[in-house]
Amino acid sequence: MATNPPQPDDLCVVLVGTRNPLNIGAAARAMSNFGFTRLRVVRPFDPAFREARSAVDASDLLATAEVHASVASAIADCTLVVGTTAVGQREPQHPIRRPQEAAPLMRRRMASSRVALLFGSEKTGLSNRDLSHCHWLLRIPTRLEHRSMNLGQAVAICLYELVRGSRAIAPPARPLPPASDSAPASAEVQERFTELLLEALTASKFTRPAAAAATEEKVRRMVRRLGLPAADAETWLGMMRRMLWKMNAQGGGGSE
Amino acid sequence: MATNPPQPDDLCVVLVGTRNPLNIGAAARAMSNFGFTRLRVVRPFDPAFREARSAVDASDLLATAEVHASVASAIADCTLVVGTTAVGQREPQHPIRRPQEAAPLMRRRMASSRVALLFGSEKTGLSNRDLSHCHWLLRIPTRLEHRSMNLGQAVAICLYELVRGSRAIAPPARPLPPASDSAPASAEVQERFTELLLEALTASKFTRPAAAAATEEKVRRMVRRLGLPAADAETWLGMMRRMLWKMNAQGGGGSE
Repeated sequence: MATNPPQPDDLCVVLVGTRNPLNIGAAARAMSNFGFTRLRVVRPFDPAFREARSAVDASDLLATAEVHASVASAIADCTLVVGTTAVGQREPQHPIRRPQEAAPLMRRRMASSRVALLFGSEKTGLSNRDLSHCHWLLRIPTRLEHRSMNLGQAVAICLYELVRGSRAIAPPARPLPPASDSAPASAEVQERFTELLLEALTASKFTRPAAAAATEEKVRRMVRRLGLPAADAETWLGMMRRMLWKMNAQGGGGSE
Repeated sequence: MATNPPQPDDLCVVLVGTRNPLNIGAAARAMSNFGFTRLRVVRPFDPAFREARSAVDASDLLATAEVHASVASAIADCTLVVGTTAVGQREPQHPIRRPQEAAPLMRRRMASSRVALLFGSEKTGLSNRDLSHCHWLLRIPTRLEHRSMNLGQAVAICLYELVRGSRAIAPPARPLPPASDSAPASAEVQERFTELLLEALTASKFTRPAAAAATEEKVRRMVRRLGLPAADAETWLGMMRRMLWKMNAQGGGGSE
């Protein structure tokens, strides 16, 4: 199903009760990497979080982060509020979605209004009270034996999933090379390589004269199995010619 | 297309030249979150990285991390080597794939043999020399204006993408594919072939001394693009040894 590209300004990343300011900086960096700009911080443990050096190249984003005294205030202008959880809930009050299920729903809403994505503190996650503001929850599929992720890594994965399906924000740096780059060389070129190789194997006495025909067939099959790329073929031919020239340069010497 | 579930033990996360031990710890934590166990560290800046407190609940994994002196050694037992890049390449030598294109290819290979995923240092990424060991590259689709991600976050996103598709799909009933005749040679064998070829190119004066480093990287990439089949590898090595012997047999003659 086609989805609208995400509207970066319509996502608010809300960090609630974060203890380590380095994690706030890391979240800011990931937001900048993926083109999101609205960071909101609720009751941060360290009021000096804006100095976090982990916000590499995202200090502007950190400087404009909003500080809120409550979750209610941080999400006031949003129409969809998604909480993140590592543990699920003992008595689930909310649907819990995986990132790939959550992202299309969030993107669709972001096309018309603002969406909040909440992350709780490193130790305790979101409280039941925080969760009560959420429409549903997102859980990254970590192992049951080790569910709890680093906060900055969790933010990065959620944002990655939001841009993953869209090309609007993050086109690949460069398109894949055209198929011809890795296309195999033509049969003619493969045969030319085979012939040079056979000459070299004769010159180096790898080929025993009595088994020449069998060696030739074997070598031809081996070259075909290589699937010499067309783009590299001229260089391989040049290397073979050069080695052959060297082997022949000093005449017929070289007994074992 | 259905894919096999990843075999967590068949992925090696290889961190090359990491400066901040906290990032190694964060990578270990993400690996544990997603069920991967093989961490390999090449020339870490801080030899005391095993004490990184960021490896929350993943200290066992950090304790068993292997330390390698070279990329070649760290990937020796892998048949597919994928490098990560933030910047793409000015003159792309490798296909660059997005995570969602890369993950199915990696999972498929992980079903039958070992795969390496390489991450470079925080400041400089993977060097051209490191990249020359890679079959292709993975780029997380960050914004062009702010491409460079935190290392731990980049590791987390790649591993998330590897498990993302697999948990959605029930494991297939069919058995793992048998190791076929066309299975690629391990990185160790490919490197051995590369070294013999480089020796031969030096002996034949194909390699100009002033351009030796560039030639080495180019040749290594070309050998990786061949996809030398494991079943043929011994014969290719034997042929190269024999040609090399011939070139060296008569000493240093053979000027043009």
